[in-house]
Amino acid sequence: MTVDLNCDLGESFGAYSIGEDEAVLPLISSASIACGFHAGDPLVMDRTVEMAVKSGCVIGAHPGFPDLQGFGRRNMDVKGDELEAMLIYQVGALDAFCRRHHTRLRYVKPHGALYNMCAADEHLSRTLVHALLSLPDAFPLMGMSQSWMTRAAEAAGLPVLHEVFADRAYHADGRLVSRREPGSVLRDPEAIALRALRMVTEGVVDTLEGTKLHLKCDSICIHGDSPAALESARAIRACLSRNGITVASPLKGEDMT
Amino acid sequence: MTVDLNCDLGESFGAYSIGEDEAVLPLISSASIACGFHAGDPLVMDRTVEMAVKSGCVIGAHPGFPDLQGFGRRNMDVKGDELEAMLIYQVGALDAFCRRHHTRLRYVKPHGALYNMCAADEHLSRTLVHALLSLPDAFPLMGMSQSWMTRAAEAAGLPVLHEVFADRAYHADGRLVSRREPGSVLRDPEAIALRALRMVTEGVVDTLEGTKLHLKCDSICIHGDSPAALESARAIRACLSRNGITVASPLKGEDMT
Amino acid sequence: MTVDLNCDLGESFGAYSIGEDEAVLPLISSASIACGFHAGDPLVMDRTVEMAVKSGCVIGAHPGFPDLQGFGRRNMDVKGDELEAMLIYQVGALDAFCRRHHTRLRYVKPHGALYNMCAADEHLSRTLVHALLSLPDAFPLMGMSQSWMTRAAEAAGLPVLHEVFADRAYHADGRLVSRREPGSVLRDPEAIALRALRMVTEGVVDTLEGTKLHLKCDSICIHGDSPAALESARAIRACLSRNGITVASPLKGEDMT
Amino acid sequence: MTVDLNCDLGESFGAYSIGEDEAVLPLISSASIACGFHAGDPLVMDRTVEMAVKSGCVIGAHPGFPDLQGFGRRNMDVKGDELEAMLIYQVGALDAFCRRHHTRLRYVKPHGALYNMCAADEHLSRTLVHALLSLPDAFPLMGMSQSWMTRAAEAAGLPVLHEVFADRAYHADGRLVSRREPGSVLRDPEAIALRALRMVTEGVVDTLEGTKLHLKCDSICIHGDSPAALESARAIRACLSRNGITVASPLKGEDMT
Repeated sequence: MTVDLNCDLGESFGAYSIGEDEAVLPLISSASIACGFHAGDPLVMDRTVEMAVKSGCVIGAHPGFPDLQGFGRRNMDVKGDELEAMLIYQVGALDAFCRRHHTRLRYVKPHGALYNMCAADEHLSRTLVHALLSLPDAFPLMGMSQSWMTRAAEAAGLPVLHEVFADRAYHADGRLVSRREPGSVLRDPEAIALRALRMVTEGVVDTLEGTKLHLKCDSICIHGDSPAALESARAIRACLSRNGITVASPLKGEDMT
Repeated sequence: MTVDLNCDLGESFGAYSIGEDEAVLPLISSASIACGFHAGDPLVMDRTVEMAVKSGCVIGAHPGFPDLQGFGRRNMDVKGDELEAMLIYQVGALDAFCRRHHTRLRYVKPHGALYNMCAADEHLSRTLVHALLSLPDAFPLMGMSQSWMTRAAEAAGLPVLHEVFADRAYHADGRLVSRREPGSVLRDPEAIALRALRMVTEGVVDTLEGTKLHLKCDSICIHGDSPAALESARAIRACLSRNGITVASPLKGEDMT
Repeated sequence: MTVDLNCDLGESFGAYSIGEDEAVLPLISSASIACGFHAGDPLVMDRTVEMAVKSGCVIGAHPGFPDLQGFGRRNMDVKGDELEAMLIYQVGALDAFCRRHHTRLRYVKPHGALYNMCAADEHLSRTLVHALLSLPDAFPLMGMSQSWMTRAAEAAGLPVLHEVFADRAYHADGRLVSRREPGSVLRDPEAIALRALRMVTEGVVDTLEGTKLHLKCDSICIHGDSPAALESARAIRACLSRNGITVASPLKGEDMT
Repeated sequence: MTVDLNCDLGESFGAYSIGEDEAVLPLISSASIACGFHAGDPLVMDRTVEMAVKSGCVIGAHPGFPDLQGFGRRNMDVKGDELEAMLIYQVGALDAFCRRHHTRLRYVKPHGALYNMCAADEHLSRTLVHALLSLPDAFPLMGMSQSWMTRAAEAAGLPVLHEVFADRAYHADGRLVSRREPGSVLRDPEAIALRALRMVTEGVVDTLEGTKLHLKCDSICIHGDSPAALESARAIRACLSRNGITVASPLKGEDMT
């Protein structure tokens, strides 16, 4: 049995450093790398791709809104053709760094507010999928399991990686519980690890409302921005290993170079 | 006999419109398209690539400094690795739009202050060439004839397009006369056209100092930002035609798709 | 009888020129000047303030979202304390140019999406008003008549300039008809001028639903971005003059220097 | 005997945190606060001004080049009128936050590349001084002792705070030794403290060339960006105290509110 672990990387900018990329890389199988709009800059992208390649990770683009000040976490009302162009731009930029380091981009995962807006909005998800399908590579979409994002991709025939969040509370309809609500974010590494294990082996998570939610689980989202987050990541990794589950990207074998 | 005409395109940004792209496209064989740092935005890039493809033009990336306010015309003291990363980023972004429109990027021509700084600086030119050679495509460099830029590319084995300026006064050593000096920019369309003709057919231009400067001339730079500039472009085009010279890019035939 | 005419000015940016500021200045009594976030740059602000002072206009700050690419027209989900800080920042920057040219800022009018979001949102309007009241000058707010913006300012004791739109269709509840709907924007200069006249003299406008809407009318918004817009502005001005109405800002007499 | 200690503050941006502002504030008498061009954002400015006021510090504006990616450390070739407008803009923005927190801006100290370029360039320094004199407040300039910056201000009658660097090696002509050269930056806190003491009490520093350089010393620049820098700051502070020297800004008493 196999599951992917992915983490947001390359979010530093100029003199500003954020995240613990070097510590998290050995824990993950896929690196979702910022593309310079909400975080990251060209030099950071170059170095992060290089590090990810050395670490043996599959590389994904992590495009966001053009909002460095808000770290891409502020909802923006962007028109469809603008959004498509923003995605193509960021994906192309990151893929060039991949080519420079003798690999290729393997997937695209929207960031922050763009991710959340797409998850909740069928129309926006279609725009996202349309953009990806307009490139000859038709890069797979990594998106939230049981959301409009992954539904839209499947409906259009775009390959999908279903992503789950082991440290977040879920609603019965598949939405994450807002961070503003108490209990929305789990803190105990062992509890998070067991939750992750169940998502992988049973495809199930208990929801806030007390129901069971069925999820497809190709990739678990790992956070690497604090010592506590790293501890959770290590607990997940160890728990998966104890249960005989291999951490690897399903895209690893493909050779697009 | 054949020569290329290239023009800067895609320099609009959001609500801001600049240049007469639609009027200039039928006159040229190569479109040097801004990449979002000094000018252009993702949507403008998408539309400009689409127009250039329809027009049958070869497409080049026109990367510049990250300085929208200064339109990339202000010298910036950027470190080598940062400059390389900036170039890779912009080139990759534009190439993605080319792929989306079923073509490929064919060359790279630095913009504005970056162009001028490279032309005059061997070290910076080597950095530029190193960046382009680090991509598997090793996109040809369009650069100033008789400058460090083209010399560095030739020395490193990177394909080169030698560019000339028919409406600018030259110094004996191959540098352009600064725009601040009187007589630096020619205004008479017929004089400009005859100068262009001589550059193409004889590889020669008269310099400010009274000497003859030998130039390699693969591409003539056309301006499309004003009615007067367009008139000059039309005069060049007509004069070349009268003298049996075909306007076409030497890169036209190559199929990189 | 007196009414103010105000127009958005100073929206050029670097090499990018937009609007016909010189043509519109003689027609208006108040200049709402962009502050560098959604449009304008420091040099443009300096020159626009200088021109407005020469023209005898009262100067207002026209702050917007930090979104040059979207010209401040894209809704952004900004937190309250961030929005307050953005307003203080822009207001302070423009006021410094006013001081430099021996005058002072006289009012603040939010731009674009920020204007529209405030007009429709009581909570956001309170944040806006709170920011203005936190400055010792407590600059008056120019905002949409019959909206949350002006209501919030009045409730908090902040001086208000009620603004009306003579070229836009209104709903019965005071909202503007969306630009996406047919008939939302009036084109006939004479019809616009008569509508403006009635707003000033009767405080009334006919709505899409057929009802009469009562408006307070301190300032009429003029557009100066096209020859057609200028023609409407001239028609309004002429019509007001024919009917004995003086164009002047109620803030003109105040000396804050 | 009295001397000022100043430190760069407010250099965080959005989600990016830099510097140890809270730890350094109790050590200094003047806070040089970034203004949003090379670092800082409106919310960071608001909070930093608030903290500085609480701490009893005099507040200065620390304007820089519009280059967040380069942290204002990259030389940029900006025209005189553009530079003046950039300064006015940033100074005005920061002063608004001061007014909001019931104080006023007291001085202006250019940042990074702008500081270094002015120190070495008479013409640029005159532009800087001209900008400050064009505001009715004519804010004092904090600039490098024995440089064009302070000379230009004195020649024009603008009040000056002469700044020295206790942890940097000096050339005989008053220039700092480039950071690229060995021995350019002192690391030993006690050596730095003794150097600072001598600058204050004797107005002298030993240069790389072995000569004595006479300096005017109104303010010592403190760094607060690392534990080591903080240690040096504490050593300076303690050494000054042991020798009966009070840490205070000469601008403290002035009431501009």
